[in-house]
Amino acid sequence: MTTSEKPPVKDPWELPDVSGLVVGVLGGTGPQGRGLAARLAAAGQRVVIGSRAAERAAAAAEEIGHGAVGADNAECARRSDAVIVAVPWEGHGELLAALREELAGKLVINCVNPLGFDKRGAYALKPADGSAAEQAAALLPESRVTAAFHHISAVLMLDGGVGEIPTDVLVLGEKRADTDAVQALAARIPGMRGVFAGRLRNAHQVEALVANLISVNRRYKAHAGLRVTDI
Amino acid sequence: MTTSEKPPVKDPWELPDVSGLVVGVLGGTGPQGRGLAARLAAAGQRVVIGSRAAERAAAAAEEIGHGAVGADNAECARRSDAVIVAVPWEGHGELLAALREELAGKLVINCVNPLGFDKRGAYALKPADGSAAEQAAALLPESRVTAAFHHISAVLMLDGGVGEIPTDVLVLGEKRADTDAVQALAARIPGMRGVFAGRLRNAHQVEALVANLISVNRRYKAHAGLRVTDI
Repeated sequence: MTTSEKPPVKDPWELPDVSGLVVGVLGGTGPQGRGLAARLAAAGQRVVIGSRAAERAAAAAEEIGHGAVGADNAECARRSDAVIVAVPWEGHGELLAALREELAGKLVINCVNPLGFDKRGAYALKPADGSAAEQAAALLPESRVTAAFHHISAVLMLDGGVGEIPTDVLVLGEKRADTDAVQALAARIPGMRGVFAGRLRNAHQVEALVANLISVNRRYKAHAGLRVTDI
Repeated sequence: MTTSEKPPVKDPWELPDVSGLVVGVLGGTGPQGRGLAARLAAAGQRVVIGSRAAERAAAAAEEIGHGAVGADNAECARRSDAVIVAVPWEGHGELLAALREELAGKLVINCVNPLGFDKRGAYALKPADGSAAEQAAALLPESRVTAAFHHISAVLMLDGGVGEIPTDVLVLGEKRADTDAVQALAARIPGMRGVFAGRLRNAHQVEALVANLISVNRRYKAHAGLRVTDI
């Protein structure tokens, strides 16, 4: 194969410096959002916790420390460059539709896992848009929507005794600049790598895989995550 | 929590001895089937390659060596204790329906990934039964249907220079004895672990995740697989 006619391939591990980004976390008082906020703040990122109630967000931010602040969800979105969506699947669409203006132009990072639970455990729901990430993209046409951070154990993230979380963060999105930024953000957390894993049309299975990790956790008494091999 | 009232929890890594099982591979002349057959035969397993044409199966078996033999698909199913289904998604249902009798009572291990491809890459198809594995279970009510080996690179398996393939094999199924046996079979291949990852109703996302691994492979020039962390 000759390479002379093609532009040089960009090194997939060469990622932008995102240390200056303000990161908002919608649903930042729930376990997943609080865990991500805590790890990012501890890594030196400026973090704004969002919640329906500003005072609950402020309380969570104070607990997290490292300069994290709290705000209601709309104010959180306005003040942030990148916004992690860590709200429950119930109410996800409604919240994003209401924040369309505040989220315009922002890098949106969806980590919502639409799951159902019954006596036999967890199972994947089938969102009408294909996935939570695709619902977000449909509701936020002026935002740069990506999906990531689905498989990171909130228990580990919230455990102050756990220094590193050795796991990969699968990152999905449509634009290289956006997924590169999210990969770089994931890599700020000790132990984590951000790994590009496709377009949003392939987000459903990444979201749904949390049902399998729940089965793993039950069988092995673990807080399972994933590593991609051979990279 | 007191444990006195409960039976002792079985060690999830305590798996049966499957070294005596005869393993058939339907679609054993395709890359995935041939790769699995080669690795299992090299590990000492008795392997029967199945194909529509017995002579093609025999040729593939001879190439693999290690005592592997070839047969047409029906004969392959009859002679095997455990049968890996590694056929293309197209024709999957038809083949299994035709082999219902031959597969009755057998341990069936489905590794089929229903994917579509277009200019933007691979994407997950949505089988009417939910997944290829659930289609197999519906068509083979007298068989013990499991799903596994979706994420193992055929390129690596067929590369004689690659000694170990350090990756985990997610195993799904309804009965502990069956998934334990498949996990044990996976562990026969150097580098691999078999990891229980839920019931068949959660097979779709495991099958579909191959679309994401294809994106990973393209971006990182790799033959990606998965490891489950914290176990």
